[in-house]
Amino acid sequence: MKVIESAKKMQSYSESLRRQGKKIAFVPTMGYFHDGHLCLMKEAKKMADCVVVSIYVNPTQFGPQEDLSQYPRDFDRDLRMAESVNADVIFYPSNKEMYPAGYQTYVDVEKVTQNLCGISRPGHFRGVTTVCNKLFNIVKPHIAVFGKKDFQQFISIKRMVDDLNMDLQIIGLPTVRETDGLAMSSRNKYLQKNERPSALTLSKSLKLAQKLYSGGEKKSAVIISKVEKLIKRAPYTKIDYIKICSTKTLKDVNEVNGQSVIAMAVKVGTTRLIDNHVFGDKLNV
Amino acid sequence: MKVIESAKKMQSYSESLRRQGKKIAFVPTMGYFHDGHLCLMKEAKKMADCVVVSIYVNPTQFGPQEDLSQYPRDFDRDLRMAESVNADVIFYPSNKEMYPAGYQTYVDVEKVTQNLCGISRPGHFRGVTTVCNKLFNIVKPHIAVFGKKDFQQFISIKRMVDDLNMDLQIIGLPTVRETDGLAMSSRNKYLQKNERPSALTLSKSLKLAQKLYSGGEKKSAVIISKVEKLIKRAPYTKIDYIKICSTKTLKDVNEVNGQSVIAMAVKVGTTRLIDNHVFGDKLNV
Repeated sequence: MKVIESAKKMQSYSESLRRQGKKIAFVPTMGYFHDGHLCLMKEAKKMADCVVVSIYVNPTQFGPQEDLSQYPRDFDRDLRMAESVNADVIFYPSNKEMYPAGYQTYVDVEKVTQNLCGISRPGHFRGVTTVCNKLFNIVKPHIAVFGKKDFQQFISIKRMVDDLNMDLQIIGLPTVRETDGLAMSSRNKYLQKNERPSALTLSKSLKLAQKLYSGGEKKSAVIISKVEKLIKRAPYTKIDYIKICSTKTLKDVNEVNGQSVIAMAVKVGTTRLIDNHVFGDKLNV
Repeated sequence: MKVIESAKKMQSYSESLRRQGKKIAFVPTMGYFHDGHLCLMKEAKKMADCVVVSIYVNPTQFGPQEDLSQYPRDFDRDLRMAESVNADVIFYPSNKEMYPAGYQTYVDVEKVTQNLCGISRPGHFRGVTTVCNKLFNIVKPHIAVFGKKDFQQFISIKRMVDDLNMDLQIIGLPTVRETDGLAMSSRNKYLQKNERPSALTLSKSLKLAQKLYSGGEKKSAVIISKVEKLIKRAPYTKIDYIKICSTKTLKDVNEVNGQSVIAMAVKVGTTRLIDNHVFGDKLNV
């Protein structure tokens, strides 16, 4: 496995692969891998000749009050894990490499970034789309693979790629969950033992929402209210939002259908967790 | 010469050229060609195997009070002119092709777009950088060629390409002028005959500025004041701005040196003209 730290070197390596007619799949990450990341890498491997994984904790997507400095990092562990699933290249740039002095360009996806996490995390998606734009230009992949746990991120990046005519395919893969149903996240590390049962109410509530929908309930307000009750009953929980939106526009909808997603952000203790479910999709809980 | 209207077709044509190891040079334009455009195409031809010229009057770079609807267009004449200098491909997209329903992504270069035309044309450079970002992704050039008459545009695009790690080289070529010194522009068509002598004061004033600088004058305020007087003396002129800036940051400077540019926008009758000169550069007036 190759580790590349320079953007120019990564770019010329990818360009040489392309000239050889090789297909490149890209998995952008902030590191501290879990099975969700490995699953993305394994799927990427099936689709391409070369899998490039970036490890970069991108400062521009963190708010001033957020967990940038304490975000978990373990590069050596990440390397071993990526190697175990036969990733080919790790792109591991520094902040100076990504945002040198004088840096001043940002990519804004205006509408789908407004609702949900866009409300409580202003500037977050601007940071995400900007860094992904840069990474796509550096890695030059044919395919980039994202987990759907970050559903709004996935939709925003797809929108950016379409709008800016970027020549790559964005693929979203289902959320990978712990055996108890908790959506995998590097931030799960922050959870205290006694908070874990409360953290499980997110996936449980998605199961409840799907059950209500399958049972004929189509009113968003009714589903949201029951989901909210379930989560509020658990200790240490503080709901940021629970919403049902169009999967295309991410605007709230009153009536649920197969193109609707229920998405939520809940603080459990000091840990902010997100989860979501597209109605009608398979839910591995 | 090939005319391509679809972004996807352009992209796959460029991709096939790249796979053959061919070098692509790109000249983005709004059409209604003059010798300045042809000069860019000729230079592009020297640097590459294939010259792609886009003709697209980009609505997102025009303000609501600006001349979008009356901007001069003559596609057949443009085709003949591009053919005369052996351009290889004309990319000629519709508005629907460039900004389909639901479009919502913009590229912002934050600092170098603030001063000069950024003050009187809010949103202009956002439109320019966004459309160039799209065009670069569609045409996939190795080189893109711009005229330095639009100096702030040239600097903003260079900044975007560097910041977003876009894998192409941006080349700026000197302003092409009429024999009387007027910088070539599609908008010169708007000028009335009796306004022409006033329009010439722009290039004359640049010559004066260079002469003052060569004679030892280094104070921006002194040079600007003399330039202003020269332009104000001519009838029909209304100065939008005359500034001396760093060529790198485009911020105003008090002391002039070889990395300074004098830039101006002046309305002559109803026609808004711009011109500029980097101190120490050759000035063909």
